[in-house]
Amino acid sequence: MIKPTRTQATFTPPVPEARRWLDGLSFPPQRPLLNVSQAAPVDPPPAPLRRALAEAMERPELHLYGPVLGLPALREELAANWSAHYGTPISAAEVAITAGCNQAFAATIAALCGEGDEVLLPTPWYFNHRMWLDMQGVTTVPLPTDDGLLPRAETARALVTDRTRAIVLVSPNNPGGVEYPPEIMTELYDLAREKGLRLIVDETYRDFDSRSGAPHDLLSREGREDTLVQLYSFSKSYRLTGHRVGAIVTGTGLLEEVEKFLDTVTICPPQVGQYAALWGLQNLGPWVAGERSEILARGRAVADGFRKLETKGWTLRGCGAYFAYVRHPFAESSATLAPKLVRDAGILTLPGTMFMPEGDADGARHFRFAFANLDEAGITALFERLGALDWPLAARTDAA
Amino acid sequence: MIKPTRTQATFTPPVPEARRWLDGLSFPPQRPLLNVSQAAPVDPPPAPLRRALAEAMERPELHLYGPVLGLPALREELAANWSAHYGTPISAAEVAITAGCNQAFAATIAALCGEGDEVLLPTPWYFNHRMWLDMQGVTTVPLPTDDGLLPRAETARALVTDRTRAIVLVSPNNPGGVEYPPEIMTELYDLAREKGLRLIVDETYRDFDSRSGAPHDLLSREGREDTLVQLYSFSKSYRLTGHRVGAIVTGTGLLEEVEKFLDTVTICPPQVGQYAALWGLQNLGPWVAGERSEILARGRAVADGFRKLETKGWTLRGCGAYFAYVRHPFAESSATLAPKLVRDAGILTLPGTMFMPEGDADGARHFRFAFANLDEAGITALFERLGALDWPLAARTDAA
Repeated sequence: MIKPTRTQATFTPPVPEARRWLDGLSFPPQRPLLNVSQAAPVDPPPAPLRRALAEAMERPELHLYGPVLGLPALREELAANWSAHYGTPISAAEVAITAGCNQAFAATIAALCGEGDEVLLPTPWYFNHRMWLDMQGVTTVPLPTDDGLLPRAETARALVTDRTRAIVLVSPNNPGGVEYPPEIMTELYDLAREKGLRLIVDETYRDFDSRSGAPHDLLSREGREDTLVQLYSFSKSYRLTGHRVGAIVTGTGLLEEVEKFLDTVTICPPQVGQYAALWGLQNLGPWVAGERSEILARGRAVADGFRKLETKGWTLRGCGAYFAYVRHPFAESSATLAPKLVRDAGILTLPGTMFMPEGDADGARHFRFAFANLDEAGITALFERLGALDWPLAARTDAA
Repeated sequence: MIKPTRTQATFTPPVPEARRWLDGLSFPPQRPLLNVSQAAPVDPPPAPLRRALAEAMERPELHLYGPVLGLPALREELAANWSAHYGTPISAAEVAITAGCNQAFAATIAALCGEGDEVLLPTPWYFNHRMWLDMQGVTTVPLPTDDGLLPRAETARALVTDRTRAIVLVSPNNPGGVEYPPEIMTELYDLAREKGLRLIVDETYRDFDSRSGAPHDLLSREGREDTLVQLYSFSKSYRLTGHRVGAIVTGTGLLEEVEKFLDTVTICPPQVGQYAALWGLQNLGPWVAGERSEILARGRAVADGFRKLETKGWTLRGCGAYFAYVRHPFAESSATLAPKLVRDAGILTLPGTMFMPEGDADGARHFRFAFANLDEAGITALFERLGALDWPLAARTDAA
């Protein structure tokens, strides 16, 4: 019997699969497609950054290999930014630049886990995390969250075995939209430290957190170099999704292992993206602050919209960063409703089933809406169309 | 007992390790460092390509996510280039674009192999291939090559087990510099097909092959879609090493599996690099031909130089593409001589030990010289310095 290959151990990528639901459909100008499926800006980076990149094309080093762990100037600049944001000094040696934040996660897991190891992943999860664990032969242990979509240390503790290597958090959360309170982070950090695990915190949406100041104080805690791994993305903050540039902030010991993975898989991060990220850190602080205000305003409007739909049986579970995670009132599973939502309402979004363990009933009851690209008119249209759906409702017994 | 993690299962990356041998050293202008350690252009891409990229920075799509398997226009263009080069029509659906050729290999292995599977790798090998197999839990089975550094099907046949999934070739070869004759490729293809394996052919140096026309006819053979996987890099041909853009050409069934890996690890290839590769394919054919002539002339001069060093006990094992693989006459291992070569002769190069199984005596007797960046003066200086080495010689008994 032939065992599955690494990729056969996991499922089809959700975003390309969802895009295929559009095949053969057309959307009239007066009722355009509302694409809330992917957490990605649709507009390019601001004009001054585009001009800076155009001018930089004459620099030879932007076209040639750079260091495996990234441009020293970018590592320095992100270390300075990190130190200021979290109020704890960290050094450039604790920063690695990666070809996007997915690669940051991939490299971290490869550095921490071997075949048959286990990682705790709160549900609902970011599907690419689950896919990479599958492909690495690492067992994903679903960590159920509470009613507020928060993972709790007491639940996690019962799931830790001698094969557990890490607990993965995403805050602000994808897909849940929840901002994890510092006390939740701390109790999970303490558990990780007690058990000799790593706490991996994916902070891709850090710059769109509604709270001001540092979202947690984990960097100032005892033993951070052997416990904490923070992941970051430049893609959303500076609209650089096509450039592939992210980062890992952790102890230098782990980064030596990470370097092996990065050297072997991509040799170095793309140089143009690194230059763009560096320029962004140096020049776009105020611009990012404006983007944050806009996204937060959209989030509030989306939360309001779903609250108004409560009378029709919808329940908002979480709303923040780019995402609203919502319980729908219909009889059918979100897995089959999602393609129907494209056809019936011109809305492309992902079903909760894509963020949950296979067969989990809870996934079937939810949708994730990635609303960041919807302007005021788009948000109005979204709720008009959702409110008009006349699909058969579920019996009330299975409501939350 | 804690098992090793994925990255702990392999060794420190050779190129960054070699670069650390330079720490604390300085090289006077009249005797500059000759860096022949890495297969990488030191000059940027030609000016028209740099200008085209600068102009393209106003295109929004260059900054935003694209399809997982690459830009459709680039897949089309490479398919057309491939069809013309190999004289067999292939379609864009058989092409995937990757973030560099290392990632092309990584994705292919993940799609083909699971834990405990085996892959045949001719020795000397490209170290990142070995590192990735280690990290994937795949057993590298060294395939010894003949006196001409060629892998032979009869040797390979004896190494195939029921866990074997692929045979990997690199032609023109890194580190060996050898161009595999078509009949060698064919016999290995036939073996792969007979045994239900894939033949993975890394053609990173395809555009610097000294032979004219198609280097093999494997694409026109029966069953190619289930047997042949070709890997390609745009990095060397258009001097785009910093952009990370490579490709996989294979059957569409395997590309569905490859898509899972690429989606999870990088989401999409860097867009600027893809645009550069597309522009290069459309406009730089004559320029690449000129580059090829220059590299081939350098290769001939390097081969001549080593032949003149035969009187001092050196033996040229292979010379082509960017590389000369050479047997040295000294008593000590190349592993310890390589850092000494930096200090004594101002030459940075990689020892054969980095391309061979650990402890293999043959690796200790060889160096790889990546000569592509050496101009005429550099080549002259290289041989003056090598000829002047007065290190203790090995006893003649272990000569080839």
